[in-house]
Amino acid sequence: MSSTANTSNLTMVNAFDPEKASGLDPKTQEMVRRREKLLGPAYRLFYQQPVQVVRGSGTRLWNPDGEEYLDAYNNVVPAGHANSRVTAAVHQQMQTLSTHTRYLQDGILDYAEDLLGTMGPLGDTGHVMFTCTGSEANDLALRIAKHHTGHEGIIVTSEAYHGNSELTSGCSPALGSRARLGTWVRQVPAPDSYRIPREQLADLLVEHVREQIADLQRRGQGLAAFIADSVFSSDGIFGEPTDLLAPVAKVVRDAGGLFIADEVQSGFARTGDSFWGYQRHGVQPDIVTMGKPMGNGYPVAGLVARPGVVERFGNDQRYFNTFGGNTVAIAAAQATLDVLRDDDLLTNARTIGQVLRDGIAELSLRYECLGDIRGAGLYVGVEVVSDRDGKVPDQARASAIVNAMRDRRVLISSTGPSANVLKIRPPLVFSSDDADWLLSTLADVMSTTDEG
Amino acid sequence: MSSTANTSNLTMVNAFDPEKASGLDPKTQEMVRRREKLLGPAYRLFYQQPVQVVRGSGTRLWNPDGEEYLDAYNNVVPAGHANSRVTAAVHQQMQTLSTHTRYLQDGILDYAEDLLGTMGPLGDTGHVMFTCTGSEANDLALRIAKHHTGHEGIIVTSEAYHGNSELTSGCSPALGSRARLGTWVRQVPAPDSYRIPREQLADLLVEHVREQIADLQRRGQGLAAFIADSVFSSDGIFGEPTDLLAPVAKVVRDAGGLFIADEVQSGFARTGDSFWGYQRHGVQPDIVTMGKPMGNGYPVAGLVARPGVVERFGNDQRYFNTFGGNTVAIAAAQATLDVLRDDDLLTNARTIGQVLRDGIAELSLRYECLGDIRGAGLYVGVEVVSDRDGKVPDQARASAIVNAMRDRRVLISSTGPSANVLKIRPPLVFSSDDADWLLSTLADVMSTTDEG
Repeated sequence: MSSTANTSNLTMVNAFDPEKASGLDPKTQEMVRRREKLLGPAYRLFYQQPVQVVRGSGTRLWNPDGEEYLDAYNNVVPAGHANSRVTAAVHQQMQTLSTHTRYLQDGILDYAEDLLGTMGPLGDTGHVMFTCTGSEANDLALRIAKHHTGHEGIIVTSEAYHGNSELTSGCSPALGSRARLGTWVRQVPAPDSYRIPREQLADLLVEHVREQIADLQRRGQGLAAFIADSVFSSDGIFGEPTDLLAPVAKVVRDAGGLFIADEVQSGFARTGDSFWGYQRHGVQPDIVTMGKPMGNGYPVAGLVARPGVVERFGNDQRYFNTFGGNTVAIAAAQATLDVLRDDDLLTNARTIGQVLRDGIAELSLRYECLGDIRGAGLYVGVEVVSDRDGKVPDQARASAIVNAMRDRRVLISSTGPSANVLKIRPPLVFSSDDADWLLSTLADVMSTTDEG
Repeated sequence: MSSTANTSNLTMVNAFDPEKASGLDPKTQEMVRRREKLLGPAYRLFYQQPVQVVRGSGTRLWNPDGEEYLDAYNNVVPAGHANSRVTAAVHQQMQTLSTHTRYLQDGILDYAEDLLGTMGPLGDTGHVMFTCTGSEANDLALRIAKHHTGHEGIIVTSEAYHGNSELTSGCSPALGSRARLGTWVRQVPAPDSYRIPREQLADLLVEHVREQIADLQRRGQGLAAFIADSVFSSDGIFGEPTDLLAPVAKVVRDAGGLFIADEVQSGFARTGDSFWGYQRHGVQPDIVTMGKPMGNGYPVAGLVARPGVVERFGNDQRYFNTFGGNTVAIAAAQATLDVLRDDDLLTNARTIGQVLRDGIAELSLRYECLGDIRGAGLYVGVEVVSDRDGKVPDQARASAIVNAMRDRRVLISSTGPSANVLKIRPPLVFSSDDADWLLSTLADVMSTTDEG
């Protein structure tokens, strides 16, 4: 696994490799060249053949030639591309007023109340704080945790991704070994339900967290927080079992730390079982962070915290985010929440997610390399392996499948420490026809890329 | 000055004090109470009597009773509230496609090229990176500087504000003494052109920077970057002289550090002299950061860096910001840039800014407490003092003026380490009629609050 890990450190899972640019048509080559010149070396494109998109609607995207793609990847638009209700709400509010939180407004209070109503006991007393991005939400959550506890240690999973700021990238091992981790970060293995017997997972996770807490304490850093995404997206998508996080939260709190649920991926009905991922685990977080899907593409994000943990932070220093929770961001977030609820996209995520998993499971009867099919709701992970008995990750095969799907205009990606887990995470309006399209395309891809 | 400094540490300049909530009308009281419950203790409102706004257009805001306010404060909307071109561009793009930078698009490249065209030599080869907020832009700039130099020291001005993330709040002394500064931060006094002879300012600043570089080196931290806002907004708004930053940049580079121009406040034509604040100082930064006004309220921000400084960062790790530079953000930014240029708001900023300064200078002949009138373009600072000879800051008087202006429905604020500098920073579409309104209201306020 070391060679695949080394590769992913430099080239990102499913990234376009500029060294192979010579195989592209002249127009794409020119755009790639222009991007390099204007945006520089830190930007990455998806796929061996990058995709140009100029229009979107629902689960569909179109390129300049009018060719239609099925989007089975973008969770940023849970209500679908160019959703008319969200678009209208943003337009209406932009024509009326776009301003910040230092003037009184009703909209932000109504939305905060509505959002808190989805969160169970935490919502009864919790405070909402608005940011623009999930990175900002996690950065703020960790700042609050450090200020509240007076400690600096943060525990994450081995391949966690929590953001792009100094603080959050410092606890995002998924960024690769050349991106610096903080001296205050400790990693615990994610609960790999494919390779470890399920009945051992909860105890193992607690044991690993205990070890890292002891290490932080011994070095005088102490524990500020444990932060995790309850579907462990960048660790390989582990939606089951759901008895893992409540025991961890207890151990973390006993050590004086906070339990932070990073719901950027698993929140807003994605998992199909409950509105928030942490609710599947029966745990009450101290802070919940949220981002991507919150405004159906409009930059809005935030966190909800127990009053007790934010009191000292709030009294000692203020928090202001110019665009965070501005009137237009709130309009986008409210419309998105309304669509999720009115169109019952929670049920759709559960139903269609199961259709996808069942369909891929059937394919796996014919194709040995589809070693494990898992996830929750419309977050599907498929482990691609070279040897089903040995469960050996097959990054090359996974990449071949992702790119062959793209060539047939169905957009998915891959993830995990070995980049061998297919990642299927469509808008929540994904229909059963969409699922059929994806499954038949995958069947076609498997039959033509099958080497066995 | 220690008592005013202590006060500002806890209550923020021009913040509403909840202890005085009992003087409010019942409806406002109820909104304040609801805000505290839902948003928690870290949020602040402006003014002793908070303002509720429900509609905006150009330089005007309206409360629910239809009462009109003159907005002489919000730089986030340089093209004016609810600008029709920006609103239409965002609506058009939201109906078409809202997606991120990992697919190819022309719009982001065209905008990057256009933006670079405003920057002088840096623009010829520079790379643009997109974020959502100025805080994210500064956080990223400092990460790049640390990665490029291998050093960790950051030098800022005494009352600098550079953002709300862990890294940027850690170098933002303006947040008050209870907000933790980094061990890697050093402060230098801002060039106080009111209290220090102008001919000494440049040498003094260089000398202070040299001292802090030596201290960072002696402790093994080294210098990663000097970062400053060229109008020194939170230090008290010092628009002149403009020969200060080129000598600093030289000293910083000689020590292996980067010179970062934080243009969140001074960029996008605000100063009236040049599109970017650093251009007034004849300096070429290594990195330029930008934010607030960039999308006329839409959350878009970013930075421009010399290729050399971002190369190692870009090769060792990627940068991705889900909403940063998405298709709608680019549409907003492009429309805003078009308006700034087509309506020549640079000239308007210069002309009307001068009208304001001249008008206030005339008032200062009658009112001793208006000790110094300064700034650049439509960024006006007025130092309120209790004793013109001693130049003693008068925070109480400044606060009385700001709140009396608000009671007459003209919105300004105050700033500076002693919170005694009136801060007038309107949308760049501020007209000469608007200036007349502001000046006559200020005259009225001065005559009724005059104690001498």
